[in-house]
Amino acid sequence: MEKRKVVLGIDVGGTNTVFGLVEKSGFLSYRGRIDTRGQAGAQQLFDRLFELFNKDYQSLSGNFELCGVGIGAPNANYYKKTVENPPNLNWGFVKMDKMVEQFVELPMAITNDANAAALGEMMYGAARGMKHFIQITLGTGLGSGIVVDGKLVYGFDGFAGELAHTIVFKNGRQCGCGSRGCLETYASATGIKRTAFELLALENAASELREFSFNKMTSRMIFEAALRNDPIAVEAFELTGKILGEALANSVAHLSPEAVILFGGLASAGELITRPTKKHMEKNLFHAFRNRVQILLSSLPEADAALLGSSALIWQELQ
Amino acid sequence: MEKRKVVLGIDVGGTNTVFGLVEKSGFLSYRGRIDTRGQAGAQQLFDRLFELFNKDYQSLSGNFELCGVGIGAPNANYYKKTVENPPNLNWGFVKMDKMVEQFVELPMAITNDANAAALGEMMYGAARGMKHFIQITLGTGLGSGIVVDGKLVYGFDGFAGELAHTIVFKNGRQCGCGSRGCLETYASATGIKRTAFELLALENAASELREFSFNKMTSRMIFEAALRNDPIAVEAFELTGKILGEALANSVAHLSPEAVILFGGLASAGELITRPTKKHMEKNLFHAFRNRVQILLSSLPEADAALLGSSALIWQELQ
Repeated sequence: MEKRKVVLGIDVGGTNTVFGLVEKSGFLSYRGRIDTRGQAGAQQLFDRLFELFNKDYQSLSGNFELCGVGIGAPNANYYKKTVENPPNLNWGFVKMDKMVEQFVELPMAITNDANAAALGEMMYGAARGMKHFIQITLGTGLGSGIVVDGKLVYGFDGFAGELAHTIVFKNGRQCGCGSRGCLETYASATGIKRTAFELLALENAASELREFSFNKMTSRMIFEAALRNDPIAVEAFELTGKILGEALANSVAHLSPEAVILFGGLASAGELITRPTKKHMEKNLFHAFRNRVQILLSSLPEADAALLGSSALIWQELQ
Repeated sequence: MEKRKVVLGIDVGGTNTVFGLVEKSGFLSYRGRIDTRGQAGAQQLFDRLFELFNKDYQSLSGNFELCGVGIGAPNANYYKKTVENPPNLNWGFVKMDKMVEQFVELPMAITNDANAAALGEMMYGAARGMKHFIQITLGTGLGSGIVVDGKLVYGFDGFAGELAHTIVFKNGRQCGCGSRGCLETYASATGIKRTAFELLALENAASELREFSFNKMTSRMIFEAALRNDPIAVEAFELTGKILGEALANSVAHLSPEAVILFGGLASAGELITRPTKKHMEKNLFHAFRNRVQILLSSLPEADAALLGSSALIWQELQ
């Protein structure tokens, strides 16, 4: 029997690391998950990961041919195959090719989570068949991946696509990066909470959100309140979409994409976020781009998107 | 004797159209110029152009082998090989491949002037050897060309790189495009004049610029006044560089270029424009990009840049 070609996809998260065997079709034939234990460094994570994986793979290997290892990780540099001081992991500077070499001698590639999501979208999701698009991940922060001519844009030093830290309000909200007014302080799960708090201070409308402290409130609560037509929650989505849409109009002027694809926690609010985003993007677009750029929701299953994306890294390179 | 391979480069301007034979090395072995006569349409221009060119070429053709025709023109679409309603020419919609076919049957390519300048810079100018850069033309308006992985970014429909119409001030200056606050209303020859007028209204400092009406003042006057340390003129350059630098910080976050190259009339002010641009770009950059992106002046001779760029279009395609 012919063996099935698979890539080992690994997605390193702040809390969990998931991994799996992905066929080129996107079929996930094996899945694993371990704690990341970010404080203990990278070596211990990969020791534990490959111990578990190798044991499982023994029982599968008759059926599979492993073709490579694709990794999605925070602060990953595609060119240098490094991870450099990721914000929530006590890793410092890690050469990931050397790390993986200890376990398997196969092609390996690495990129950050947002770029991996964009690749996954292009191979398996809402961007199938597109050659020019922007993928925006609206999670705790904002991640973005830019695809031009069917390829991810890494730029001169591997860090292109940092839309999170484009400045949308001079002297605006304080950002974790040290600047003020960065897009991700407005357009993200954290950003919409900050917007809700501004609105609670600004307006007198009754709102169920008045019951929650800053530390207790989540973007999920705002979403559910908006579904019940809570005026503060509805307005928070409207403003979030407005700021995101205005920023995207400028991104479109740079790149002329076919679509912008929204992914991640906040994107699961669907129309609540896409409608104001589209409206305010259109309002600010240069006329050559009007009514030409779609705002789409990701069609990747959120649980598997990172794995699909990191394995897509290898499938793209093997092409 | 072996014939020299050349491309016919054509640069269609609002007033003049220049054309020439360009070798791959950038050597210009023949140059011509005619009035554009924008009101009379495209056909008459190309009739006159090829009549003149063919006559001259007869006397040269023993030495040259013509390999293609590269055209730089306003509102040119690279993919469709069209020119679509250029602002200063009464052309409407023109299929440029059909236009050129009447005269020569050779590979032809077309793009807008700013993209052509970026290509020229990459083949012959300050961006030689670079694979990731942004070219900004600071003329009457602002033009821009984006290069990623050694190739111009055209985007989904051929109109990428419209940084002129990214909005940098909500409800800011009125722009010819119908919007307000577009970058080119600040960072261009016209933009710096508007800034000087704002400053003349805002400040009491004595200035030689107080002698000129809006219609009489030119960016050249502001430049010369700044060289004499005129406080309004100096501040006008400072503010222009600030707004351009802030906008470029956001462009860098998208694209992670190796350099931004400034070209055109305002760029000839040199340090007066590059110093504040660099300073304010750095101030607004995400830390991953700080001290990594150069601001350079074009090294193309301004008179030949458009010809070099439009012929580079063909040399790139023949590679």
